[in-house]
Order: sequence, then C-alpha cells, then structure tokens
Amino acid sequence: MTATVDPDRSSWDVIVLGGAAAGENAAQYASQFSGLSSVLVEDSLLGGECSYWACMPSKALLRPVEVVDAAAHLPGVSARLEAAEVLARRDRVINQLDDGSQVSWALSTGIDVVRGYGRLAGERTVVVSRPDGADRTLTARHAVVVDTGSRPAVPDVPGLRAALPWASRDVTTMREVPRRVVVLGGGVVACEAATWLAGLGASEVSLVYRGDRLLARQEPFAGTLVGQALQDSGVQLYPGHNLSLVKRAEPRDTGHGHIHGGEVSVTLDDGTTVVADEVVVATGRLPNTEDIGLDTIGLRPGGYLAVDEHQCVRGTDADWLYAIGDVCGRALLTHMGKYQARIAGEVIAARAEGSTELPSAAAGHIGLPQVVFTDPEVGSAGLTERQARDAGIDVEVVEYDLAALAGTYVMRSDYRGQAKLVVDRTDDVVVGATFVGAGIAELVHSATTAIVGRIPLSTLWHVVPSYPTASEIWLRLLETLRVKRRTDDGS
Amino acid sequence: MTATVDPDRSSWDVIVLGGAAAGENAAQYASQFSGLSSVLVEDSLLGGECSYWACMPSKALLRPVEVVDAAAHLPGVSARLEAAEVLARRDRVINQLDDGSQVSWALSTGIDVVRGYGRLAGERTVVVSRPDGADRTLTARHAVVVDTGSRPAVPDVPGLRAALPWASRDVTTMREVPRRVVVLGGGVVACEAATWLAGLGASEVSLVYRGDRLLARQEPFAGTLVGQALQDSGVQLYPGHNLSLVKRAEPRDTGHGHIHGGEVSVTLDDGTTVVADEVVVATGRLPNTEDIGLDTIGLRPGGYLAVDEHQCVRGTDADWLYAIGDVCGRALLTHMGKYQARIAGEVIAARAEGSTELPSAAAGHIGLPQVVFTDPEVGSAGLTERQARDAGIDVEVVEYDLAALAGTYVMRSDYRGQAKLVVDRTDDVVVGATFVGAGIAELVHSATTAIVGRIPLSTLWHVVPSYPTASEIWLRLLETLRVKRRTDDGS
Repeated sequence: MTATVDPDRSSWDVIVLGGAAAGENAAQYASQFSGLSSVLVEDSLLGGECSYWACMPSKALLRPVEVVDAAAHLPGVSARLEAAEVLARRDRVINQLDDGSQVSWALSTGIDVVRGYGRLAGERTVVVSRPDGADRTLTARHAVVVDTGSRPAVPDVPGLRAALPWASRDVTTMREVPRRVVVLGGGVVACEAATWLAGLGASEVSLVYRGDRLLARQEPFAGTLVGQALQDSGVQLYPGHNLSLVKRAEPRDTGHGHIHGGEVSVTLDDGTTVVADEVVVATGRLPNTEDIGLDTIGLRPGGYLAVDEHQCVRGTDADWLYAIGDVCGRALLTHMGKYQARIAGEVIAARAEGSTELPSAAAGHIGLPQVVFTDPEVGSAGLTERQARDAGIDVEVVEYDLAALAGTYVMRSDYRGQAKLVVDRTDDVVVGATFVGAGIAELVHSATTAIVGRIPLSTLWHVVPSYPTASEIWLRLLETLRVKRRTDDGS
Repeated sequence: MTATVDPDRSSWDVIVLGGAAAGENAAQYASQFSGLSSVLVEDSLLGGECSYWACMPSKALLRPVEVVDAAAHLPGVSARLEAAEVLARRDRVINQLDDGSQVSWALSTGIDVVRGYGRLAGERTVVVSRPDGADRTLTARHAVVVDTGSRPAVPDVPGLRAALPWASRDVTTMREVPRRVVVLGGGVVACEAATWLAGLGASEVSLVYRGDRLLARQEPFAGTLVGQALQDSGVQLYPGHNLSLVKRAEPRDTGHGHIHGGEVSVTLDDGTTVVADEVVVATGRLPNTEDIGLDTIGLRPGGYLAVDEHQCVRGTDADWLYAIGDVCGRALLTHMGKYQARIAGEVIAARAEGSTELPSAAAGHIGLPQVVFTDPEVGSAGLTERQARDAGIDVEVVEYDLAALAGTYVMRSDYRGQAKLVVDRTDDVVVGATFVGAGIAELVHSATTAIVGRIPLSTLWHVVPSYPTASEIWLRLLETLRVKRRTDDGS
C-alpha cells in the first residue's frame, strides 16, 4: 500500500494527527453522516498501539493462559500450552505488524491517509515530514484532532537505559519467552505482562513496584487478590521497592521483542539483587506532545492536552483544535479514547452543520469501565470508594464474596474473588463497582449500564440475574445492602 | 439430620408447600425482617430440582465441555476431558444427593422443616403424610405458599413408557455415558443434554424434535446456530419429526441415571429407525398440582396456578394463598422462581405488618433473562421480536455479527455468533436482546439492566463497553441502529 491519496491535495475538512484506533474513529464519525472530508496523518502503523502493540497482542497472549488456568481448576479437564503456537497466533492477531487492512478500511470509508510525521504549524495547519524527506503542508477547514497517544515513561535508574530494557511493545510482541524476567511497575501493564510471562513459561518472574500493593488505582482488594494469584503461580513480588542499579555486561539491541544481550543484574533499594534475562519497564506513560508543534499555536509542549466535554482543547482560543485518546490524559484506555473520538467526530460534524446542540462526553466518563485481564480478572466501572469520597459523595459501600455463588462454584474449584458496590446514598444510585474473579469481564457492562443510566437501587432490585451465572453477585450485593440498611435502621 | 423441629408444633405464620430453591427464598424473605415464623414442607430433597437434578448438575457437566471446546478453538492450547472425573465432580456439586447442608441452612435461618408429602386441606391448612404413615396437620396464620414445581411431560408414543426412558433427572445424574442416545425434544433441556452427552463421549447422539428449529421460543438464529454447532460435534438432527414407536426388548429399571436394560429401537414418523442405548425425554414439563389438595379450596387440580403481580393465586377468594416457581407457569426458570419468592415473601411480610404498599413482580418479569448453556451459549432478556410484535409494540430491530468484534476474535478462532436488539420505537428503549456465542452468559445482565431500567437509547449510547470484550457488541448494535435510522430518514 503506497500512495493512498492525491499527492497534491492539501486541504481537508478534518485533519487527524495520529491514526490510532481513536483517530480512525474521529475521522469516521466526522465524515460518516455529514460528508466532511478527512485525512489521517500517521508515521507508524494505522491502528496504532492498541491494534499492534497493546490490547490485541496482550489479549492474544492472555487468553490461552486463561483457558489453561480454567482447566487447571476444573477436575476432569487437563490442558497444555504450546508457547510457540501462542506466539504465532499472536502474530496473526496483529497481522504480522502489517496495517494494510486498516489502510484499506480507511480508504473504503472515504478517509484519506498521509504517511509521515505530522506537526501543527499554526492555525488549522499540519506539516508532515515524509519518509522521502519532503515536507507537505495540510490545512483543515473545520478541525484538527490530536491523537498522538502516549509512550512508556522510563524511570531514571542508574544503568537502566543502558541495559536496553523492554518496554510494553517488546513484551507484547516478544519473539521468545525469557526464562528470568524482572518487571518494573505495579499497574495494569506490569500485572498483565507478569501473568502471561509466567503462564507462557518464564520460570523466574519478579515484580518490583513502589507502592504497597498492585493496581493502586483500583479498590484495594483487587491488587491483593491479583498479587496472591501471581505469587501462587510462582511470581516473586517486591512491593515498596525502587531499583537502585541495573547492570548488563554486554547490552545488544537485537530488535523489538528479542532478548537484548546477556544476563542483567537488577539491584533493589534495599540491596537485594535479582538476576534476569530481561527487564520490562511498565511504570506509567507520558503524552506524545513534546514535538507536535504545540508551540506554533501558543500551547506548551510536553504535557497532557486538557479538554472540555466536547473534546476541545482548553487553554487556547483555537476553536478548531480537539484532542482524544491517551494524549488528553483523561483515561488511558482504548475504549475511552474511541468514545472521545466518537464524541469529537460528532461535535465537529454538528458544528460544520451549524448546530449548537453539541454532544458531550460527560455521561460516558461517569461509567469509565476497565477490565484488567489478569487471573483473576479485575473489572471496574465508575468510581472507587476512595474516589467517591474524594468527590464529596455521601458514600455507602457493600462487598460480597464472588466465590459464594452457584455460578462461580460450578465455573471452577477453589474460585477466589470479591465484589463491591459504591452507592451514592443521596441519589440512591450506584456510582462505582468492582468485580475481581475469573470470568467477570463481561459482567462489567452491567455495572457501566447501571451507573450511566443512574438506575435507582429500588429498580435494580428487579433486575434478575440468570442462574447460575456470576451475575448473581448483583442480587447478593443488593440483598446485603438491604440487610445492612435494615440493621442500621435498628429494625 | 432427623427431627428438625418440635414434632408437636402445628401452627406457623407461613407454610411453604415445597422446599425447592424458590420455596426456601419465600420462607427466608417472609421471616428475615419481619420475624414471621415459617416452615418448609418437602418430601424429597430440600433445595429441589435446581440444586440436585437440574441447573447445578447440568452446569457441572457443561462447564468442562465448554472449557475443552474453548481450548479446541485456540491454537497453542490442547485439552483433554476425563468423563469419569467430570461425573465425580458433578456428584460433589450435588452433594451426593444429600440435603443436609440445606436443612442446616434453613434451621440456622429460623425456618422449620417438616418432611413428608403435603396437601392443602381447606383454609390455611396443610396436611402432611409423613414417611412413617402418620398424618400431621399444619395451619398457617398468614399464608400458604405453593412451590410444588413441575415434572417432565412424557409424550404418548407407543412403547415409550414401557422402554423406561430417561427424563431430565436421569441425564443430569447419569452414572455412565451412553454411547448411543436419542434425545426427544428441541428445547433447553434437550439442547443442553445433547451438548454434554456429545462432549462427554457419546458418539451417536440423535436429537428428534417436532418443530423446524431448536429453541423455538428464542430468536430464530439461536436455534440455527446451536443446531449447526451440534451437527459439527457429530449430533444428528431430526427436525420436524415425532416418534411413532419405541421398542426395547428387555427394559430393566436399574435406577436413576443407569442405562435401563438393552438396546432400544426408536422409529420416527417417516419410518426412520434409530438404535440407541438410551432414550432421553425432554419434551416440556407439567405443573405438580394434580394431588396437592387444590380441590379442598375450590380450585381445579392439574393446571398451572395463575398468579397476580403479588404472586397471589387468582381465581379464588383465598387471600392467604400464594404460588411461586414453575407451578405458576410464568417462567420455568430457577432465577425467576426465586425472584417470585422474594416478592411473595415481602408481600406476606408487608401484609402481616398491615402495609398496603405491596411489592410487585411486574418490573422483574419485563427483564426475563435466560442463559442456555449450549455451545454457543444463548443468552436473552426481555422479548423476542415476535413477542414484541404480538404485544403490539412499535418494533425496531437491529442485528450484528458477534464474531466481528476484537473481543470475540481474540477469544477463539472461528468464533460464531449473532446478536439482536428489539427496540420499542415509541418509548425509544430496548425491550429485548439476544446474544448467541461463546462467553456471553454474563453479558445478558447488561441487557436485563437496560430493559428493566428502561434506559433511553440516547443514554445507552454513552455506556462505553470495555475493550476488547464481547460487550462491545452493544456499541456495534447501537451504531448500526443509528446508521439505519439516518438512512431511513434519507439524510
């Protein structure tokens, strides 16, 4: 797939700077109903992080581990995993890092594609540095949408960069499974990577993180349960630790996903030394705004781009500038980026048609769902208890053991899990929910529905869960809350 | 566990005739907050059909088949099933048909248990025929709740009864897996049984049913997809057929779940003959109301007990008489029976306290969720398109291929499925949803939530599904509906 568009064209209604999943959606929604023309500017693969280096490959690695684990906890079933075949399927899932099908989709949808590195260059203007060295200037009649995403933050540890650590892209597209790995970080990427590394055969996985628990943004029991399960599968946890020194005798950059040279020695801040074949850095992300020309329109490079509910960038009078996805820092999740993209696209189309009734992303952000595909899975929607209290909500909470259900009892032996609802007592609606356990990924959407729909608890009481499923947790939680309220009332 | 209650006691606030799952719930809800005394009358196992002969054992048999099937569609994972171990786990799941723990639960909850066969005997009175032959008369101050359940209907086919066919209890508690089985029926029990029989090693399974498709009460594509999958796993389908003759040379009743004697020959109405080791009858159910003393209070025995929204039996001035579960014929599903039980229990408690604000089961019945644990699973909530049209609703429908999602693509290779929403165009709310595919069981609760919560489509649009999960089907369905409406509007 080479030239995909008239090489002399210089003007579109909408320019999308960054052709990842969200960017694609913004272009699609801007043009789908309104007939606006749009172009995606991308110097890497169309479809971006999610399609090739994040969600898709990680899920392709985690799903086989999940199935083997399900079998291991089910008498009468035995399962085996062949890591090489799993990696080969992962390669098919990421289309061997070929974005041809995504380019075809864009063009067939009427969205143009310009390859090259784009930078803002004043009002409604984007200059693209193309692979052949020639610059190309694009102008937008209606809008420029920034979707330049984020990149891994590498902490400032002596020797770490020189040791050529793996970042998230390496561990999702790994060509071989390191036997010994140190994973640095305690968030989603770190926990998921530790899960698939151990599941695919890494025999010595160490997880080093600064906090006292994993998945610190989730309800506390989430990190506790995931940590226990990781330990059960042989992962060594080092909570409350930083690295003080990393040494690799002969670092060799052998390419993405290959082990970079020989043995690496990792020293923690208490002097403990762990020897590994590879180090994975998963300590958060930084927005890609350093070098996208923000200075040409009076914005400071380097930070997240704050947006309003219409995805318009704040702090500027450039009413044509939108931001979506990781770069606006609201929720670094593919599905939220795509949601923001749908909103931005619709806002752009509405404005182009002269409408003053503009779609808003406010409602969707209340639901904020997330699934961490560890084992047990962690699914959440809305606010944690801490976040709800910080927001000044009159909070009532209820928890229940997910293992104490017929639906989970038949799912696997020794099921372990926990669930929690966070209720706004004033409005009597659910504002947050967390489920930790096997097979809860699809359960999250019921919570998101209840939260965004602001369904009163008195109505939720009549939403009957099917028997025997894990969804019965809703009945148990609501029942427990009722008993609690009766008891609190002294009746 | 023998005598569980003062043998001379003769009066309670609430008598529950039938101690299955629903009955237990009715007693619990009547007494939990109000302090009403209650007693369960049961001549078989406390916990009933669901705990010992239906939901629990069938799910225990289906779950291993599901996991092995998931592995079979996932390159890099191979799984094997050991039928004997699966049957042994099934036995543990049904507590070796010992209801001791349920009796303990009842007593610890303050619910009495009287063993024996109970019959109504005039106003607020139940006479129990006890195992020792002595009758015992119980009277209820407030309510008698009928939860006598249902039993399999055996069609009138020459030779069928004499051949001692298996009914649902036999196939859920089978002691050995027949090599050749004819399953008669095309509903939930028949489809689930065919799935586990084939999955556990029966090499010749035939499914004979009168209609032209399986699961006739679901959206048509459900039966089509389940039928295709059954055929793929080697099950022979005989749609549009009745049996005309069944012959078994030496039928021997060897006990529940054992193969009853030698080879059985089954002749269809077109003359086709199928030879099998066992015949399973799954052609619907009949209410257990023939012999429960309905005549003593002016009601006709044998039919379903019609109830109002408070679960009070209609057609009688006996304001103390309630019915819940299968026996009222509203929805022969454990979770709906338990829901009706919660409502009945609360109504009884409210009335005992003199309240005139009575809970109603109307809202919950709108949601009506069901999961059929075939492979693919069939999950539904609310109305089918046909049911909605018959109800006079201004119907709009939308369908989408469940396989065309990132979340199902990573779940397994060659995923097959379909989803459909039924929308009430006037009120712009979802009134029905059907999902067919692997891993959709927990997805149903989001549909039940949307339906019972009557969330406008404009709000559902902001309920973001997590990526990559099967829940993303919601986005695709709503997106497709939007495009459809725009197109219909001509814009």
